[in-house]
Amino acid sequence: MAAERGIPVVLVGRPEQLSGVGDFEVVSASQVIAMGAEAASSVRKMKDSSLVRAAEAVRDGRASAMVSAGNTGAAMTASLLRMGRIRGVSRPAIATPIIVPGRAWPNVMLDAGANTECSAEWLVQFAQMGAVYCRDRWGVQEPRVGLLSNGEEAGKGSPLVKEAFERLEDRAWQTRTGAVFAGNVEGRDLLADQVDVIVTDGFTGNVALKTAEGVAKQLIGALVEALDSSEEAQRGAKLLAPALAPLYDEFNPDSVGGAILLGVDGVSIISHGASSPRALANAIQVAYELAERNTVGSLRRILCSD
Amino acid sequence: MAAERGIPVVLVGRPEQLSGVGDFEVVSASQVIAMGAEAASSVRKMKDSSLVRAAEAVRDGRASAMVSAGNTGAAMTASLLRMGRIRGVSRPAIATPIIVPGRAWPNVMLDAGANTECSAEWLVQFAQMGAVYCRDRWGVQEPRVGLLSNGEEAGKGSPLVKEAFERLEDRAWQTRTGAVFAGNVEGRDLLADQVDVIVTDGFTGNVALKTAEGVAKQLIGALVEALDSSEEAQRGAKLLAPALAPLYDEFNPDSVGGAILLGVDGVSIISHGASSPRALANAIQVAYELAERNTVGSLRRILCSD
Repeated sequence: MAAERGIPVVLVGRPEQLSGVGDFEVVSASQVIAMGAEAASSVRKMKDSSLVRAAEAVRDGRASAMVSAGNTGAAMTASLLRMGRIRGVSRPAIATPIIVPGRAWPNVMLDAGANTECSAEWLVQFAQMGAVYCRDRWGVQEPRVGLLSNGEEAGKGSPLVKEAFERLEDRAWQTRTGAVFAGNVEGRDLLADQVDVIVTDGFTGNVALKTAEGVAKQLIGALVEALDSSEEAQRGAKLLAPALAPLYDEFNPDSVGGAILLGVDGVSIISHGASSPRALANAIQVAYELAERNTVGSLRRILCSD
Repeated sequence: MAAERGIPVVLVGRPEQLSGVGDFEVVSASQVIAMGAEAASSVRKMKDSSLVRAAEAVRDGRASAMVSAGNTGAAMTASLLRMGRIRGVSRPAIATPIIVPGRAWPNVMLDAGANTECSAEWLVQFAQMGAVYCRDRWGVQEPRVGLLSNGEEAGKGSPLVKEAFERLEDRAWQTRTGAVFAGNVEGRDLLADQVDVIVTDGFTGNVALKTAEGVAKQLIGALVEALDSSEEAQRGAKLLAPALAPLYDEFNPDSVGGAILLGVDGVSIISHGASSPRALANAIQVAYELAERNTVGSLRRILCSD
């Protein structure tokens, strides 16, 4: 699909397994880091793994971006170790798009899980990186940044959130980034059109994201079951299909694409292990666009001057 | 409705406003703490408010339990200051039931927001209180307790979670409480039949709960709109009504009742400000049952011996 869109794709892996896929350039890698493998030690030991070789291809300029749907931790570690950090960035963060029903672009939440513990300074960098990404990817000219807390009022939150709130109020980073700090947001705002970027530590971000996914899955599962629960229900479902189809599209995570590791010196898109062909094609499209627009260059410009 | 069930109800508030409600005993209170008012100072200053008088009625034995649907923070503060803590309890916590589709009882998550910052010791007490509550309220004989984290594996989590994990592994509290520690759970397990009690700090608990509520609201809202979006859809919706009705009941928070403040020396049920009559009647029923079963006595017995 990506090839049909005119995007040059390089495949990384075992040549004998990739030869039948199509007419693509292949970077050879003999090892595969398994889905459940421990990330750091696997990346250290398996130097000829596809994840490590893919990150090296970006570092060496053989590829402009990397898209993976494997072991998330290993993809992060390989990207970080081989591409390195952008100068000035303390910690890379995973930025995940979250569907906002009725709006053309999603919310970007970061960190969605790369850093369990964070400092307030890092959260400000997450805000900057998220805003640059949101603008480059979805054309939001002046992204609104919200800080995830347990209440909307200033003064609400953990010590980390309170300190981050004060730092985020500073105009200097907002002006340099071309973003606006919109204050605290709550869990219920994750899918809401309140802000464009949601900043949080990797622990809270992971819990919030998995909660949202879990609830959506449970609800949709129960609904699908109900639609099929009797002949009468099936007839009703048929009549409702035209009304439910756009809803399915709207809430389908595949439509917003995968997560990205922001802060490494290269484009690294990290897709779900269970990515559909459509999700992967979208991820490749996104990787291509971000490389074209030189998003990493924008991040360098804004973050190095700190 | 509660009166129909044979539960004696005492109303607290302005007598002139309560006289028309029915044949209930009235405890007079001239002041009302507004929904948005600052909790601590309001409780301190408004000594004749309905929330303060209700908590006093429990303290003084005029009532066996208190049910409120007003300012959550003020209800917590009034309960804490007037009823006091159970001896041995470091901090009371809000325990919120979360629907588990297909299971007769919900998960209990605590702390859902009373304590933004927590210590690992408190989390163990939350585990004990949640387990006792789960058994008394839903008859779960040996509740399974999960610790909310950003991964299921043992070493995953913030420093707080890691320390709490170690303490929760200790058999002594499990034996005394009659509960089992089931390890870490993730956000996606909030509505799942993995455990019966989910322990977390009040910051994370608040974010997770509001995320779950937000996603459910967005999804159900979109669904309801789709069902009404055309004449064809409306006909389909009519055919589906028998299949969707139980689902609506299952996911309706009113069916599991309100939150409870565990650790204060009395029963204090804290309902949503937007509680329906059905939700309030359920809350009164729950308050009655917990008073009958002497849940506070069980908590005293298990927590004082620490």
